[in-house]
Amino acid sequence: MNSFGRIFKVTIFGESHGESVGLNIDGCPAGLPLTVEDFLVDIERRKGGTQKGTTPRKEDDLPIFKSGVFNNKTTGAPLTILFENKNTRSGDYEKQRAVPRPGHADFVAHQKFGGNEDYRGGGHFSGRLTVALVAAGVIAKKLLGSATVTANILEIGGEKDLEKGLQNAIDHKDSIGGIVECRVNGLPAGLGEPFFDSAESLLSHAVFAIPAIRGIEFGTGFAAARMYGSEHNDAIEDMTGKTRTNHAGGIVGGITNGNEIVFRIAVKPTSSTPKDQQTLNWESGEIENFSVKGRHDLCIALRVPVVLEAVTAMVLADLLLLEQRIKRLI
Amino acid sequence: MNSFGRIFKVTIFGESHGESVGLNIDGCPAGLPLTVEDFLVDIERRKGGTQKGTTPRKEDDLPIFKSGVFNNKTTGAPLTILFENKNTRSGDYEKQRAVPRPGHADFVAHQKFGGNEDYRGGGHFSGRLTVALVAAGVIAKKLLGSATVTANILEIGGEKDLEKGLQNAIDHKDSIGGIVECRVNGLPAGLGEPFFDSAESLLSHAVFAIPAIRGIEFGTGFAAARMYGSEHNDAIEDMTGKTRTNHAGGIVGGITNGNEIVFRIAVKPTSSTPKDQQTLNWESGEIENFSVKGRHDLCIALRVPVVLEAVTAMVLADLLLLEQRIKRLI
Amino acid sequence: MNSFGRIFKVTIFGESHGESVGLNIDGCPAGLPLTVEDFLVDIERRKGGTQKGTTPRKEDDLPIFKSGVFNNKTTGAPLTILFENKNTRSGDYEKQRAVPRPGHADFVAHQKFGGNEDYRGGGHFSGRLTVALVAAGVIAKKLLGSATVTANILEIGGEKDLEKGLQNAIDHKDSIGGIVECRVNGLPAGLGEPFFDSAESLLSHAVFAIPAIRGIEFGTGFAAARMYGSEHNDAIEDMTGKTRTNHAGGIVGGITNGNEIVFRIAVKPTSSTPKDQQTLNWESGEIENFSVKGRHDLCIALRVPVVLEAVTAMVLADLLLLEQRIKRLI
Amino acid sequence: MNSFGRIFKVTIFGESHGESVGLNIDGCPAGLPLTVEDFLVDIERRKGGTQKGTTPRKEDDLPIFKSGVFNNKTTGAPLTILFENKNTRSGDYEKQRAVPRPGHADFVAHQKFGGNEDYRGGGHFSGRLTVALVAAGVIAKKLLGSATVTANILEIGGEKDLEKGLQNAIDHKDSIGGIVECRVNGLPAGLGEPFFDSAESLLSHAVFAIPAIRGIEFGTGFAAARMYGSEHNDAIEDMTGKTRTNHAGGIVGGITNGNEIVFRIAVKPTSSTPKDQQTLNWESGEIENFSVKGRHDLCIALRVPVVLEAVTAMVLADLLLLEQRIKRLI
Repeated sequence: MNSFGRIFKVTIFGESHGESVGLNIDGCPAGLPLTVEDFLVDIERRKGGTQKGTTPRKEDDLPIFKSGVFNNKTTGAPLTILFENKNTRSGDYEKQRAVPRPGHADFVAHQKFGGNEDYRGGGHFSGRLTVALVAAGVIAKKLLGSATVTANILEIGGEKDLEKGLQNAIDHKDSIGGIVECRVNGLPAGLGEPFFDSAESLLSHAVFAIPAIRGIEFGTGFAAARMYGSEHNDAIEDMTGKTRTNHAGGIVGGITNGNEIVFRIAVKPTSSTPKDQQTLNWESGEIENFSVKGRHDLCIALRVPVVLEAVTAMVLADLLLLEQRIKRLI
Repeated sequence: MNSFGRIFKVTIFGESHGESVGLNIDGCPAGLPLTVEDFLVDIERRKGGTQKGTTPRKEDDLPIFKSGVFNNKTTGAPLTILFENKNTRSGDYEKQRAVPRPGHADFVAHQKFGGNEDYRGGGHFSGRLTVALVAAGVIAKKLLGSATVTANILEIGGEKDLEKGLQNAIDHKDSIGGIVECRVNGLPAGLGEPFFDSAESLLSHAVFAIPAIRGIEFGTGFAAARMYGSEHNDAIEDMTGKTRTNHAGGIVGGITNGNEIVFRIAVKPTSSTPKDQQTLNWESGEIENFSVKGRHDLCIALRVPVVLEAVTAMVLADLLLLEQRIKRLI
Repeated sequence: MNSFGRIFKVTIFGESHGESVGLNIDGCPAGLPLTVEDFLVDIERRKGGTQKGTTPRKEDDLPIFKSGVFNNKTTGAPLTILFENKNTRSGDYEKQRAVPRPGHADFVAHQKFGGNEDYRGGGHFSGRLTVALVAAGVIAKKLLGSATVTANILEIGGEKDLEKGLQNAIDHKDSIGGIVECRVNGLPAGLGEPFFDSAESLLSHAVFAIPAIRGIEFGTGFAAARMYGSEHNDAIEDMTGKTRTNHAGGIVGGITNGNEIVFRIAVKPTSSTPKDQQTLNWESGEIENFSVKGRHDLCIALRVPVVLEAVTAMVLADLLLLEQRIKRLI
Repeated sequence: MNSFGRIFKVTIFGESHGESVGLNIDGCPAGLPLTVEDFLVDIERRKGGTQKGTTPRKEDDLPIFKSGVFNNKTTGAPLTILFENKNTRSGDYEKQRAVPRPGHADFVAHQKFGGNEDYRGGGHFSGRLTVALVAAGVIAKKLLGSATVTANILEIGGEKDLEKGLQNAIDHKDSIGGIVECRVNGLPAGLGEPFFDSAESLLSHAVFAIPAIRGIEFGTGFAAARMYGSEHNDAIEDMTGKTRTNHAGGIVGGITNGNEIVFRIAVKPTSSTPKDQQTLNWESGEIENFSVKGRHDLCIALRVPVVLEAVTAMVLADLLLLEQRIKRLI
């Protein structure tokens, strides 16, 4: 349930204020060069703290290899990586135990796990676990070879001028969301399957594993619902499958067609807003006023691009490993 | 790869112009009453042919139980259902073998399967296979008990007046897309998992198994990216988890929260448009003009609601079966 | 639950006295030549009827391709094959509904499926379903290329002279078991994984899917428990990994080592014996005398070799497809 | 590939001379009490060192909870446990890099992973990883409630007097194997599935994940192949399914029948024998004499019972969790 992938299978684990968060990858091919340094850029991109609107919480966030790496290469055995939680202040959360934070998983976690969940800072539901996704992405990107996965923020709070969108939120003393786009180039045609394991199915499955995502659209996306077929269809121009336009976003019939893969996702505003809110106190059964304590991002979308790249690379590396074997035996 | 579900596992198979299409369900509980009559309404809803804009092709489409049903009940053994293909006119397609239809899977199928694919009428990629999804949905809905899954068309070609949207397409001699919304009521809180098996992950995975879907959004969806956190957060109002608003669409932290589940999908315009188009002829290597032969829907979105309900019910029945066992042992 | 395989995934379905039994293979590579004729030899080997000790029930048992085959080749889409049940005499079983046959699954099926199971002739538990295993094996063997999988009966009722063993059973008016050995040649080293997906784990998993199997041993097997290490270890003789002896049966550390794979299985005596027996009548709650009606094999082991080859080939084809992709990407 | 289980899914990882070995359990129900103390007895049983014939290597082997445990209970989130490797002497192994040890996985690991494997002390193939299996077993046993899983050694080197068998090995300066039996009491009828997920399939799958196992037999096992049907069949005696005899070992048609589950396994002699042996040097291509360095068990079978109990409990806990949900929905 906390795993993803058929060949390159990633499991993530850990809690926001527990000892550590981490990941296990089962099925990573042997012989892939891998060092701590490989992770630094993407982990830094995820951290925030240097941008307006991101939380000042900092972790060293150096990956600790516990298994599967030997002499700076993957061994082919299961790979386990830990990130220690050093900078936790649980006291902030203890006192709010009976007050589920609006927009957070506190209420559903309590329902689902019968009160046994680690509730400190969101526990296992915390955005902290995205560091494990980013780490999986670092490895997955290596498996993609020369193919590139690049995500960028398109808008913040409805503004294409991102500084302006963020300043709006600061001025309103409120949190804000955004739109992030991902583009993949250099992959072969033929990845994905018709129906249940369509490339869109797998990509969206992985994307909605990122907290705070509310929508995804491929190629022209929702706008396609307002186009005529003759406008939307992409004319094939040559034997490589290159199309004149790319309304399909690089995926037709669930299968990559060799053109650029393009999709966009909607990130909701950070649930922890500086504004006062109301919520239930499940001990008293009363509605009460609620204000957020602790350190939080004004706009979680700012941290999303590197996480989006990571889950995208995970899906595509898995599909590439699967497709490798299809053509061989016969 | 053509299967979905952990407990209630559905496999679909078949080709548009082969002998039959069908499905296998492994993991359906024993003792569920099931007769041919149970399928008639939803299969009729999928058929089209009575509405403007849907194809005149008709199949009797009566389910044939090949295994897993005895004395009008499920036995607990794998359930296999066939739908025979009676009304096929392969000749329409044979002559276009070298000309991949724009917007269709012809090109990618050829790339992926090395020319071995059954290319007649889209073969395994055909929308014909959605009859198998609908059949799985009929059974899944039964497992949901009193919970309801209802999908409706919100707009056609950008028009909320659906007749008008369709008439636009007819007037333009072109195909058109639409937006479909799904609402689920009566399910308990607690379904889904954090991260990889979030309810949104599983629902979107299944939804993108439906041909022609280009986007999905939950609750407020893409609009959430333009809201402030204080607007978007849903205040919890009582001990059942009922929220004052439902911007989250009934899912928080990947888990259902007991409120109505709401999501919308974008359906692209039918790839087979009456308008002339251009595409590659992969034998000659030349671009040539192309016009669609055969029977086709002007607006495939008209057929989508019952299919959307089906895949939604499949996901939720599976989650319900999974959740059943969580609470029992301890 | 009724599926096996990670890439070459086989699902079997059907009941002894239902309409049909069959199988679905998801993940069979495209382009594999496949005709009805390919199945005839192995299906004939399974049938019995020509040998002393096997049941006179005969089915035409011609495979009917319902999906996934086009122009006499696999398409890469899910492959469905049916075998119709033509020669059923349900009346034999109806009257024994309340009397679970000793050694058969009648009692456990009733417990597990709450009385909803198809009880006629063992229903889904019937040995009839091994025809679906044999069919999967025909396809799997093709995927193994020049590698060979050969199973032979080593003894019947403790006798290496098989005719004599069988005659003993006939003379005693009783059923009898046997030992069957399987040998695989021509496979590369490197198939299987350490621990959970060891080659022995997967082979034994598949082997115990055959009804009536009570044990399996690899290489020297149980006798290894009585050897010294210096006797049991196989000295490696050359760079190909060829060993001087083959006590390991071709598998070390869960991985094939390139030598012949050898294992043996124990087949219990047919549960349906001509001898009178006692069992419970669950309506009366009384023990009563019981004698078998219908057509049955005296020695089911006679039919096992081709089924054993089939499940062995399934496992190894899957491992070969998996291993193909491991070496490629890097 | 390094995971097992459908609901209670266990992944093991680590290397003999790496930083640690460990496990991840995904799907453990929330609210199970769990402390370090719970592990001590079974880990002590596995250690050896106090018995004649077991290696003097000692580890503290205290489990370190890295995720999934909070306030001494499972949270329902993925559970990760590490065991640190403190007592490693890699130097023993470095010099033998080019000389694959007979009976060990050195050769196949090199073939499979292209020389990237961690070869020190067997790396990921080491028996050291069975500590992770034992830990999974501790948790699985808790899920079984009042049901008991007990494994015992039946013979050592062919001797039922175990001391004598071991002394034989010591006297011969050689290693030796053994037979271990496992018995399970207190489980309900109905666990397991017909065919691919038969209780025997799953148990044998898990059992062959233990290094050095060469065979498994259920109930009467191989001896069943020499019995008549009227002898082997177990007469059902009452409405609970209790049988007069238990030749079936508690499993019929792949399903538990409520009687005691009984099976035996063959453990080969420890590959690392004090006796001189021959093997290939793959650098020189020459056969050379070889003698074992380092610390090793004379009879690995002595450590197997607690590991066998562990994998057995894992399988049965998973089947119990699966079966829970079958009966509920309808």
